[in-house]
Amino acid sequence: MNKNNCYCVIMAGGAGTRFWPVSRVAKPKQFLDVAETGKTFIRHTYDRFLKILPQENILIVTAEKYRDLVMEQIPELQSGNLLLEPYPRNTAPSTAYATYTLLKRNPDAHCVIMPADYIIDNEELFVETIHNAFDYIEQNDVLLTLGVAPTRPETNYGYAQVCGGRDALQSKLPVKVKTFTEKPDRDLAKVFLASGEFLWNAGILLWKVSTFRHEMEKHMPQVTGLFKGWEHALGTPVETDFLTKAFSDCMNISLAYGVMEKTDKAWIYPVTFDWQDVGTWESLYNYMAAIRDRNGNAISAGKVLSENTSDSLVIEPEKKKLIAISGLEDYIVIDTDDVLLICPKDDRKFKDFISQIGMPEYEKYR
Amino acid sequence: MNKNNCYCVIMAGGAGTRFWPVSRVAKPKQFLDVAETGKTFIRHTYDRFLKILPQENILIVTAEKYRDLVMEQIPELQSGNLLLEPYPRNTAPSTAYATYTLLKRNPDAHCVIMPADYIIDNEELFVETIHNAFDYIEQNDVLLTLGVAPTRPETNYGYAQVCGGRDALQSKLPVKVKTFTEKPDRDLAKVFLASGEFLWNAGILLWKVSTFRHEMEKHMPQVTGLFKGWEHALGTPVETDFLTKAFSDCMNISLAYGVMEKTDKAWIYPVTFDWQDVGTWESLYNYMAAIRDRNGNAISAGKVLSENTSDSLVIEPEKKKLIAISGLEDYIVIDTDDVLLICPKDDRKFKDFISQIGMPEYEKYR
Repeated sequence: MNKNNCYCVIMAGGAGTRFWPVSRVAKPKQFLDVAETGKTFIRHTYDRFLKILPQENILIVTAEKYRDLVMEQIPELQSGNLLLEPYPRNTAPSTAYATYTLLKRNPDAHCVIMPADYIIDNEELFVETIHNAFDYIEQNDVLLTLGVAPTRPETNYGYAQVCGGRDALQSKLPVKVKTFTEKPDRDLAKVFLASGEFLWNAGILLWKVSTFRHEMEKHMPQVTGLFKGWEHALGTPVETDFLTKAFSDCMNISLAYGVMEKTDKAWIYPVTFDWQDVGTWESLYNYMAAIRDRNGNAISAGKVLSENTSDSLVIEPEKKKLIAISGLEDYIVIDTDDVLLICPKDDRKFKDFISQIGMPEYEKYR
Repeated sequence: MNKNNCYCVIMAGGAGTRFWPVSRVAKPKQFLDVAETGKTFIRHTYDRFLKILPQENILIVTAEKYRDLVMEQIPELQSGNLLLEPYPRNTAPSTAYATYTLLKRNPDAHCVIMPADYIIDNEELFVETIHNAFDYIEQNDVLLTLGVAPTRPETNYGYAQVCGGRDALQSKLPVKVKTFTEKPDRDLAKVFLASGEFLWNAGILLWKVSTFRHEMEKHMPQVTGLFKGWEHALGTPVETDFLTKAFSDCMNISLAYGVMEKTDKAWIYPVTFDWQDVGTWESLYNYMAAIRDRNGNAISAGKVLSENTSDSLVIEPEKKKLIAISGLEDYIVIDTDDVLLICPKDDRKFKDFISQIGMPEYEKYR
């Protein structure tokens, strides 16, 4: 790979509140360290790519309201590498914005699109994999997504079925994608897992930017049409005015739905680094296996004293309180400055409860 | 009764932490409004006696460290009516201090000793009863305690057995006390209840102060000896020096043990006003019957949203948080600035848990 032509676009605009009440619209997951690693997700992501690319080739796309949160985490980020969206319009418009910006800067740009909120524990292997993936797209005009061999019938991930079935995955080389399926139900996920033809779609994407432009203009002209003819504005003082209009008019559409599921250039690269998209309290609890106490409690709080309490997740982000718990099994207890949540740990029960809390009370605390 | 000779001594020195983590050594129960009445216990107590006595005849005995908490609650209290104990030595030394102070002020003083932390819901009947009790001690040289007919085998109260058995209680007039028993176990409490010979000892005491002085000097000379000969110091600038020495040397002894269980002048007056010494979270929950929600939850918090949650007590004293609870039955949830407690509501389980929390972690938050 030619490092000078390679870029990373970190997608950090999500307003996810799945880690409510720790994550809020005002401070979503990517700006937190819910897994107790010592760094926020976005800082981990940025640091990982510093090992691969020149700093000036790492861009961050986020919402205008998260500007300060990004700069707090990445104070060294050059202002030209911070792409701010005036309105949230999902991943396809963000990627279009980054695409036209990169092409204006370097018509030979190659890039990796990287969500800001992944956990990747085997960094050396990750770095090596990204190098290989860049080499692959240098040689092949494809939209390459990274795929992870599934180990359980996970219902919170997306899946990709490969052409050629289970045999095609033997080579460990990129394979053409046959179908994408977002978050299947448990039964379908079991079928996928058993078939051996599916990979988890990690949502880490690489391509020549010119190749992607061609595909997106072909498959979602209603989005790209808002940018075409306006490339001259990008990176200039009139950019903000242009973006306000373009994002205001733009539809809300994901990159998966807008391009990846429609293009015939989608390929998937089976990777083996340790990737996790920890997106629920229960999955965070599972991830924290190594630091659980002898009763199976995963704890991040000032001080926890417990009895008859097991398999529970206790989070007090400020780490200033004494949490005294007796008699809870399989619960989550999250104590923030303005919300206390006590709920069974099971993802479905949590989700059901949150949906029942309902508006407008919950809205005030989102 | 001659109002000018009648005094009230409010006992407000207790450092009870039974409502931990809301009550602390630094702010015990009498300075709180855990029952959500709109006033602290001590303010209720003071206001009740304003209906009976001239303001200048109401005194408060408390620990030196609670001076500011008392003045915050009773800003109109004259400084001469605030008796400050330099060290906590239980109720007998407090009462001795108040006794010598009152006798110096008025040798014909009659007084009622009143704990600061009772709940009394029928105030008119209370006022009438205190009037009658003052009349009774005017005519009779006795140490009179008020007694409440027990309605359950309560193990957190003291009991008094009357001379003459169940028949003696028919008259509704004061009766001589045969025995006092502090906090019996459940089986003994059941026997007391069934016998019809026992009353709950409410610990509200009335006497001619000179009569009480005679009894206390007879039964606990080791305490009163520290005061005798020093009456001239009380209420003067040298009082503090004297008290520091006297309380430093004094034993820790309760009024019940030091005098009431030993004197042959103990009488009890069966009263019918609604008295409760709410001293545990479970009893507070029981007291809050009228304001429980349809699932039996007693709540005092900013906002509580719950599902599958019943018969629980939720207290967030600052009333600023959203408390979202799913799946708790018969629990207490207490969320203060520096402590979160989640525990089964049962008194014994709470007590066991608190004792297991142990030192030194718990000490820091007492």
